[in-house]
Amino acid sequence: MILPIFLMFSFLLSSSSCNALDFCVADLKTPQGLAGYSCKKLELVTVDDFVFSGLHAGNTSNLIKAAVTPAFTAQFPGVNGLGISIARLDLAVGGVVPMHTHPDSSEIIVVIQGIIDAGFVSSANKVYFKTLKTGDIMVFPQGLLYFQINAGTTPVLAYVSFGSPSPGVQILDFALFGNDLPSNIIEETTFLDDAQVKKLKGVLGGTG
Amino acid sequence: MILPIFLMFSFLLSSSSCNALDFCVADLKTPQGLAGYSCKKLELVTVDDFVFSGLHAGNTSNLIKAAVTPAFTAQFPGVNGLGISIARLDLAVGGVVPMHTHPDSSEIIVVIQGIIDAGFVSSANKVYFKTLKTGDIMVFPQGLLYFQINAGTTPVLAYVSFGSPSPGVQILDFALFGNDLPSNIIEETTFLDDAQVKKLKGVLGGTG
Amino acid sequence: MILPIFLMFSFLLSSSSCNALDFCVADLKTPQGLAGYSCKKLELVTVDDFVFSGLHAGNTSNLIKAAVTPAFTAQFPGVNGLGISIARLDLAVGGVVPMHTHPDSSEIIVVIQGIIDAGFVSSANKVYFKTLKTGDIMVFPQGLLYFQINAGTTPVLAYVSFGSPSPGVQILDFALFGNDLPSNIIEETTFLDDAQVKKLKGVLGGTG
Amino acid sequence: MILPIFLMFSFLLSSSSCNALDFCVADLKTPQGLAGYSCKKLELVTVDDFVFSGLHAGNTSNLIKAAVTPAFTAQFPGVNGLGISIARLDLAVGGVVPMHTHPDSSEIIVVIQGIIDAGFVSSANKVYFKTLKTGDIMVFPQGLLYFQINAGTTPVLAYVSFGSPSPGVQILDFALFGNDLPSNIIEETTFLDDAQVKKLKGVLGGTG
Amino acid sequence: MILPIFLMFSFLLSSSSCNALDFCVADLKTPQGLAGYSCKKLELVTVDDFVFSGLHAGNTSNLIKAAVTPAFTAQFPGVNGLGISIARLDLAVGGVVPMHTHPDSSEIIVVIQGIIDAGFVSSANKVYFKTLKTGDIMVFPQGLLYFQINAGTTPVLAYVSFGSPSPGVQILDFALFGNDLPSNIIEETTFLDDAQVKKLKGVLGGTG
Amino acid sequence: MILPIFLMFSFLLSSSSCNALDFCVADLKTPQGLAGYSCKKLELVTVDDFVFSGLHAGNTSNLIKAAVTPAFTAQFPGVNGLGISIARLDLAVGGVVPMHTHPDSSEIIVVIQGIIDAGFVSSANKVYFKTLKTGDIMVFPQGLLYFQINAGTTPVLAYVSFGSPSPGVQILDFALFGNDLPSNIIEETTFLDDAQVKKLKGVLGGTG
Repeated sequence: MILPIFLMFSFLLSSSSCNALDFCVADLKTPQGLAGYSCKKLELVTVDDFVFSGLHAGNTSNLIKAAVTPAFTAQFPGVNGLGISIARLDLAVGGVVPMHTHPDSSEIIVVIQGIIDAGFVSSANKVYFKTLKTGDIMVFPQGLLYFQINAGTTPVLAYVSFGSPSPGVQILDFALFGNDLPSNIIEETTFLDDAQVKKLKGVLGGTG
Repeated sequence: MILPIFLMFSFLLSSSSCNALDFCVADLKTPQGLAGYSCKKLELVTVDDFVFSGLHAGNTSNLIKAAVTPAFTAQFPGVNGLGISIARLDLAVGGVVPMHTHPDSSEIIVVIQGIIDAGFVSSANKVYFKTLKTGDIMVFPQGLLYFQINAGTTPVLAYVSFGSPSPGVQILDFALFGNDLPSNIIEETTFLDDAQVKKLKGVLGGTG
Repeated sequence: MILPIFLMFSFLLSSSSCNALDFCVADLKTPQGLAGYSCKKLELVTVDDFVFSGLHAGNTSNLIKAAVTPAFTAQFPGVNGLGISIARLDLAVGGVVPMHTHPDSSEIIVVIQGIIDAGFVSSANKVYFKTLKTGDIMVFPQGLLYFQINAGTTPVLAYVSFGSPSPGVQILDFALFGNDLPSNIIEETTFLDDAQVKKLKGVLGGTG
Repeated sequence: MILPIFLMFSFLLSSSSCNALDFCVADLKTPQGLAGYSCKKLELVTVDDFVFSGLHAGNTSNLIKAAVTPAFTAQFPGVNGLGISIARLDLAVGGVVPMHTHPDSSEIIVVIQGIIDAGFVSSANKVYFKTLKTGDIMVFPQGLLYFQINAGTTPVLAYVSFGSPSPGVQILDFALFGNDLPSNIIEETTFLDDAQVKKLKGVLGGTG
Repeated sequence: MILPIFLMFSFLLSSSSCNALDFCVADLKTPQGLAGYSCKKLELVTVDDFVFSGLHAGNTSNLIKAAVTPAFTAQFPGVNGLGISIARLDLAVGGVVPMHTHPDSSEIIVVIQGIIDAGFVSSANKVYFKTLKTGDIMVFPQGLLYFQINAGTTPVLAYVSFGSPSPGVQILDFALFGNDLPSNIIEETTFLDDAQVKKLKGVLGGTG
Repeated sequence: MILPIFLMFSFLLSSSSCNALDFCVADLKTPQGLAGYSCKKLELVTVDDFVFSGLHAGNTSNLIKAAVTPAFTAQFPGVNGLGISIARLDLAVGGVVPMHTHPDSSEIIVVIQGIIDAGFVSSANKVYFKTLKTGDIMVFPQGLLYFQINAGTTPVLAYVSFGSPSPGVQILDFALFGNDLPSNIIEETTFLDDAQVKKLKGVLGGTG
């Protein structure tokens, strides 16, 4: 009784199994294309490609007392092509996520522990700024400058989710001061003073 | 010294403020279109459109001991057009999220408290099934049947994030047994026995 | 007189011929990516890549008296990247296309011969159900459960067209009962009785 | 026993029913937007919005012995937003679908009755041309010039499906000769002779 | 002889004229949606909706000796929905386009007159920086910080084209210093000194 | 003081540098996929991939006194995946860009020198036609027939920008007369006279 049904769908199912893209676990060894990586062969895919246990507490013993632990395509190849990803954010007391943008995705933060001051600036130059309590969420639109600061007296744990498997990130200070962009160019295009630029280049490892 | 700069950018900025869609907070009173709702007027938008404090613990005193509290466009209009949303999941001991699909989005679950048995079935008919511990994440590809069960002895708290502001949901039992789809049609197209169909129609409020 | 024109467009045309993607016949031997397969080299493409003669009458001598014959990318590589595909549906008297979804595409059916009972269930749990006569068409939205039944006394011939070259398919009974998903998990997440689950696992080749 | 389940999902379901776009039946009275029309209110939608019985045999008693009967958004509002549509093609003996393009969609033709000569021209200027027998399908890539001719001694019935609910159509002769584009402009940009241009303007109702 | 052809296509053409979106000239009085504005009624559209004569030389008598004159949807409603737009850039000697991003589009600049120093910073923190001569083009990827400086001794005229009808713009200095973002928040999230922040807030009209 | 910050972001930055697609300079030696080419390795990318100096004056010493010089992916691999490209147009006195379509992109022309008669024909068969002066821009919607003619007494220089890195082009006369499409097929599908078809096949190198 079983065989006839299988017979009927055998062609359809075999086509779907080699063709229909339920998912496309990244084969990180293939060349990257515009739409992500090529797909790991279906027979090699297991449930472990869709589960990730690496979102451990980050080490916040650094200058800004912050740690971001991502589950993007590079760490979690199962999200390749599925249009979503997530990261864990730890902020010690006094911790700061500096001004940055994600060029390729909006972000939602959900505060699990602690209190956060968060805000973004629109292209119309308006500030949207608020204190988030435990359990609150906030959405940050794609491509706009934003920041998050531990506003409380206890460590912060939060998760940030994205609408892209590789949302990208451009951290303002690194973009300006952490490379060889000539100081005079920075000054002309940001109106910052020469001393300020050189001081931050010193802190962030920039040259020129 | 200030005015000249403003002068220079005035045209650009005024155009951007009425035009560039940094975001499009849903005006839920407008007719819904394919790409979501029309945008709330920019001058009426405040930071409170981007922050949501309604993800409270759900009431799990029900048959399946589960509660899902969404922050989709209808509850959180700020996500309209930003391609992401989130929901809170509470599972009491023994709680179950029944077999369902999201037609319009993949999902990532992050387990904040407790242990979950979770799985999905691919279109090639293979089961991807695993026990998730606190801190684990799992991704469920768009449009495939999946489920989540409290596998532990304590309540589960989890957040589920989506790559759509309105991911949709089709819960299998409601789709089959919670409406007026004639029993004989259900039986012909699912191979379920008549007694089984009528029993579940009774439980779920279906007729026919 | 001919040469000068060719001269003028030679650069443009040569660039367009190696670059502009009028089409991208799938090279099924390349690794599959998120956006489909890599393209067969243009000099190897012939009209036969765009014509398919394999939509023969399917064999309906099976339990459900139905046959689906697809022209998806795997069978008809010319549709790769063009966003459409088609399949032939044969239903003998009494034939049934069981409850299923296409995660990646909506579907239009056109009835060439015979009469069909067809319906789908929305995520709001409402049934849209009607008898289709020869010449009628019906559209089934992406990702929702639907079915088709021969409602007449003669065989049915129909064509179903899709908005994707690989629409995928998840057949409910195979997803639930045709694999090793443990019976107790099925029962917890579908509310089906143990006897029912085990009976259908027996029919459909499932274990566990 | 029923109420608790409903209780649990009530919030989710009510949000999904007003929000999740399973479908968006066009309200043709609303202004058209880039992504189609606004959605008919859900409570007004019935199964008849998803079924269309108007693909009757067209009247081929005309100069080109051909008739195209569409089921696009304007005739079949249920396809709005679902990314697909279909049309019926009748060709009497000697009938011709003149050279044309669909700017917004590829097309698959399936021949139900008769024999067709069909072909398209790529942007690399190559002709892909073949005779299609009953049961054959052919795909025509988006935006390229193509044609179909009854190549047999009996009428042709075919269906053409699209990957857009409104695929658009630009019929070459109407575009060139069926309006007020000045003859000298046509001649300069097509290299056609003045007599030829004026003759076809006469046939197709053009002026200038 | 004319009528029969018209007869044949009359249904198709009338449907296409009310449905197929060749274009969608913005009706700027309608509420803006995620996909742009609703379409101006077809019978009101003229060629003047597709032609724009307003890209005059900008007034560079300002602090940064620069002027950007856009032809985005707000100024040039014909580009609504067509996925492209353009702007004119004038830089007097010494003129600067300050560090900024376009969240919604990449940009190509073509230098018509003069010499420009231009560069962008990748999310991997690398600087791509070069002097562009008359006739050169440069592409700036979406969402990344970039700048343009008149590097010569004569005025610069350039055109910048975008892959969006409303590319948006976030000018770094305005985002940081031209609003009421509290100074201490800026300092914590950018590492700039208090004196520097307050000086630029003074120049750019910021408070707090 | 530098190291701790780097420590914090090291994981994030290394993931972003191998993953986030700020850009994807085409590796033209890889097989082309639907979404373009695979990406050149990041460590090989330099600013010269984003700058192009090849838009020199074209040679208009040909029959139509016109030259188009493109900067599409094939010539300018830096635009791969960025959704934009540009070309230079030179028209000597009397020069013409013949009737053509771009199947994959709309176009904006900006007139740098000279006067142009330009127009397009909508799918509703209406002509949008105007004389463009120096400094004017005009937008031509995707997939529609259009043309440009030097309408003045001096050479024309213009730039045309696209919303695709490979916009494609189908030049009407080449598509109809520059290949082996049989004359009788052309005549049946365009209503052109046999003598006209054979004359233009002679000019444009067609056979059959």
